[in-house]
Amino acid sequence: MEFYPVSIEKLIEEFAKLPGIGYKTAQRLTLHVLNLPGDEVNEFAQALVKAKGTIKYCSICGNYTDTDPCAICSNPNRDNSIICVVEQPKDIMSVEKIKEYNGVYHVLHGVISPMSGKGPDDIRLKELIRRIGGEIKEIIVATNPNVEGEATAMYISKIIKPLGVKVTRIAHGIPVGGDLEYADEVTLSKALEGRIEL
Amino acid sequence: MEFYPVSIEKLIEEFAKLPGIGYKTAQRLTLHVLNLPGDEVNEFAQALVKAKGTIKYCSICGNYTDTDPCAICSNPNRDNSIICVVEQPKDIMSVEKIKEYNGVYHVLHGVISPMSGKGPDDIRLKELIRRIGGEIKEIIVATNPNVEGEATAMYISKIIKPLGVKVTRIAHGIPVGGDLEYADEVTLSKALEGRIEL
Repeated sequence: MEFYPVSIEKLIEEFAKLPGIGYKTAQRLTLHVLNLPGDEVNEFAQALVKAKGTIKYCSICGNYTDTDPCAICSNPNRDNSIICVVEQPKDIMSVEKIKEYNGVYHVLHGVISPMSGKGPDDIRLKELIRRIGGEIKEIIVATNPNVEGEATAMYISKIIKPLGVKVTRIAHGIPVGGDLEYADEVTLSKALEGRIEL
Repeated sequence: MEFYPVSIEKLIEEFAKLPGIGYKTAQRLTLHVLNLPGDEVNEFAQALVKAKGTIKYCSICGNYTDTDPCAICSNPNRDNSIICVVEQPKDIMSVEKIKEYNGVYHVLHGVISPMSGKGPDDIRLKELIRRIGGEIKEIIVATNPNVEGEATAMYISKIIKPLGVKVTRIAHGIPVGGDLEYADEVTLSKALEGRIEL
């Protein structure tokens, strides 16, 4: 049985290392790449090396950036007195997309998760506490609404409230366009709990 | 609204150009790559450039290869009198996997498809005819069992049979482990037509 030449097998292997990409998909991607013009393949390879080479974490908020501080932290039009705490850099993009939040961010790069052996010291919590000063008015905790995210939010609030800063949590409830019939009990109970006056 | 730094956006774009990868997946792959050690990213980039740079088509069968002729065409233990005709290099791998075929291959790099403006001159048919000589005993047409694949098989048989070479087509029928109840009429009719004596 003859297989692909070594350099093809190698590229298939590399693609197959990516999350959610199995051998068959990796094979399809590799054959696609072989059919591309050489320029485009080089461009792809350069984009890989360049992204890895030029991107670092912002020393203030922990977001991915090519300048330090990042574009958000160094923007004079953003409100530095509100910090939105998220788990990962990609969550910043989700919040930015709604185009309504004008504060700054803090990326934890993880959550407190005793199950996977991650404690408060394994995420960027100390860096958050260091940012708390006279200027900060509110910390919005926007970790994911799952067990670890909730526990992390609780922990942050327990630590930061004594410092005299308001700590808030994004609301849980029925998604817009959702259907009461399909909402689970916990979500529905949270939606009732968080009801607002009309 | 602030987005990702330019070099991240660029890498997301590059991933999103691949078949079956949308923006969200491209974003996930990019963030995965940023978390890899620099060595691994370089290795991935090199694999891309190297695969594209060293891989060419075998001048005999049209398969991907890093040597010319390819490993299959230059293997003295393979039977050069039987040629299995396939649409794409990846089909060779599918046939090789069954570990029973010991002949050689011919890759058409496409099929005859009037709908997409592809005629007999747009696939490697002339190269196949050129290979027909005293030695060749059988041409097995293993194009896909769809309209274009069938039409191409018919065309190949019409052209090659007059040259005195046996032309065969892979069998259609119920897949092993399949269920008569779920077989479509055309497949079932082909399975009946191709019945063999026990």
